[in-house]
Amino acid sequence: MTTTALTHIASLVTNDPSLGDGTPIGLIQDAAVVIDGDRIAWVGESSKAPATDNALDAGGRAVVPGFVDSHSHLVFAGDRTQEFNARMSGRAYSAGGIRTTVAATRAATDAELSANVARYLAEALRQGTTTQETKSGYGLTVHDEARALRIAREQTDETTYLGAHIVPPDPAYATDPAAYVALVTGEMLDACAPHARWIDVFCEQGAFDGDQARAILTAGLAKGLHPRVHANQLSYGPGVQLAVELDAASADHCTHLTDADVDALAQSRTVATLLPGAEFSTRAAWPDARRLLDAGATVALSTDCNPGSSFTSSMPFCIALAVRDMGMTPDEAVWSATAGGAAALRRTDIGRITPGARADLALLDAPSHVHLAYRPGVPLVSEVWRGGTRVV
Amino acid sequence: MTTTALTHIASLVTNDPSLGDGTPIGLIQDAAVVIDGDRIAWVGESSKAPATDNALDAGGRAVVPGFVDSHSHLVFAGDRTQEFNARMSGRAYSAGGIRTTVAATRAATDAELSANVARYLAEALRQGTTTQETKSGYGLTVHDEARALRIAREQTDETTYLGAHIVPPDPAYATDPAAYVALVTGEMLDACAPHARWIDVFCEQGAFDGDQARAILTAGLAKGLHPRVHANQLSYGPGVQLAVELDAASADHCTHLTDADVDALAQSRTVATLLPGAEFSTRAAWPDARRLLDAGATVALSTDCNPGSSFTSSMPFCIALAVRDMGMTPDEAVWSATAGGAAALRRTDIGRITPGARADLALLDAPSHVHLAYRPGVPLVSEVWRGGTRVV
Ligand SMILES: [Zn+2]
Ligand SMILES: [Zn+2]
Repeated sequence: MTTTALTHIASLVTNDPSLGDGTPIGLIQDAAVVIDGDRIAWVGESSKAPATDNALDAGGRAVVPGFVDSHSHLVFAGDRTQEFNARMSGRAYSAGGIRTTVAATRAATDAELSANVARYLAEALRQGTTTQETKSGYGLTVHDEARALRIAREQTDETTYLGAHIVPPDPAYATDPAAYVALVTGEMLDACAPHARWIDVFCEQGAFDGDQARAILTAGLAKGLHPRVHANQLSYGPGVQLAVELDAASADHCTHLTDADVDALAQSRTVATLLPGAEFSTRAAWPDARRLLDAGATVALSTDCNPGSSFTSSMPFCIALAVRDMGMTPDEAVWSATAGGAAALRRTDIGRITPGARADLALLDAPSHVHLAYRPGVPLVSEVWRGGTRVV
Repeated sequence: MTTTALTHIASLVTNDPSLGDGTPIGLIQDAAVVIDGDRIAWVGESSKAPATDNALDAGGRAVVPGFVDSHSHLVFAGDRTQEFNARMSGRAYSAGGIRTTVAATRAATDAELSANVARYLAEALRQGTTTQETKSGYGLTVHDEARALRIAREQTDETTYLGAHIVPPDPAYATDPAAYVALVTGEMLDACAPHARWIDVFCEQGAFDGDQARAILTAGLAKGLHPRVHANQLSYGPGVQLAVELDAASADHCTHLTDADVDALAQSRTVATLLPGAEFSTRAAWPDARRLLDAGATVALSTDCNPGSSFTSSMPFCIALAVRDMGMTPDEAVWSATAGGAAALRRTDIGRITPGARADLALLDAPSHVHLAYRPGVPLVSEVWRGGTRVV
């Protein structure tokens, strides 16, 4: 295997508190990273780097672990520009909502959906995202949910079955939502499980209540899918407590939390995944990351990339928002966008730059990871490595 | 001269209300633009485009005028990462402020300052900014202000003399700020005027009061420099009224405005230039663009790019903030970042895509200009033309 050293890294975020400055992000100044095949083989001070086959000078740039975006909805077709424009311009807009995207997604060909997923994965990769979770949820038939996951699985390992996104607009379910829950936990689950790692449910007023959500996630668990939950986004509700009860990998959104919700998260392995792009694009109140961190909860940041409520694929943008509006320090936000995302996917091989981890790195056109918040909106990611190969 | 057509533009923002949809941004669907030398020669529907020497297919992308960033501070050295990090992490930080940048800028070589300007101009260009104003203001000696403007002028025509940024920390002025005003209006002005188009003053409590600001701007006018004013950023004050009184091209920041300030702007040629990057990075309250627009004032958006209070060079980021938090529609924000910036620089040759204008264009990896707000943080600018030449 060929070994490659990246040397003279101005500052390196390892996310190993036993390294460097001893903070949770384990920051090493004037650092080097040695890559062996697809793995990190060594990290430390540049002057102490071992001999390697190749050496590349990082030229005073900072290096962070590739971002881990643990929540997105990339299998869709169509566009909701008009709806966004109307909302932001204060104009009424009668169509719109998830149903618009469901109709467009059902009407799209496999090739169109696949190209869309590829497009947004490539866009995210250029911005430093080396691991991307994505969900079904715009098909809402057995056929369309299964094909969404099959298409997603061709491009990422982290796929989530979200048949329980909303009760679909089809007349059959309008008066009988239980029939849709039966489908989601029955035939649809059987068709989707081979293509998914996770099962998710939108537990919210107007979508699925606590009992329905428990039934859905429990059915998924029985088929080998591990739960994650869209919880407490629009209002207080049972989602977070359910996520903890079922040892979900993550409770996502967490915008409206009681003290008991915060305590439950803090005393669990369930990560609180915050999605500031959604609050940004819907002009909603921000989730309180500080409260969660102070209570001892693990916090991840993700994009929620989707054409309705958060059409950003930019993890740096989410970091900048989290620092500005959610009470996170730059260190915490960068940790949450890397190691936090990995925790939300129950992964230990990504989200850190330490020996044995997958060699996923983002080089910044800046001397410090702090610049991801200090220079908001600026595309600072200048080079990306994934699995030991330079891909951007 | 060679003529080139860009065809099949999904939607084209011309900023000419007599074109296309008849709105202020003059939007044309499925459009073409013909470039002749460094100028726009023709715009219209793609199917009606005249024959040209070359034709390039824009492939369903949107095209907007190159952004006009009418307010930045790019002639600086040093870094204020630690100060930003401390502020955002809730830690005390005793050093910091403009004085830190003044010390670093004075200590830098000409080559270092020039390289810094080039770096940020290139970074802005990659994000679609084809006209960039920039200021002195971190030298604050005759020598250092003049060299800042000389260096800036080598790279942009839009240079602004801001000797009156703060009263410098030198002991001579601590008890005698009037002596500094005398320098700014005397020897320093003489040294700077040959390299500048504009004169600016930071009219604010703790910087320069209304009488000082009037003396400074009037002195500049007498030397052929036209005024612009840092006005009403941190508190109510005389800056906006003074800007209107002197027919300043722009009153910049405009965060704290009385009704009389708004009326004065609305009844003047003075543009209200809003700088949301500053409010973002200092966690300050947003300026109210809606109030200004509803009163009939002309509004521009700019970055205020500087290492202290707003280290973004991204006009798309400013557009997204203006839509989210300042009450602007996507159309208004895009207009303000292009035609508005041109008005703030009293330019009619830029900020629009109409026959006779300079051929400055940004092609977006999106079908509509609305995506600049709809897809916040995502680097959507895929190609940039300036003066008829593709530069990105
Ligand atoms: Zn979601
Ligand atoms: Zn300024």
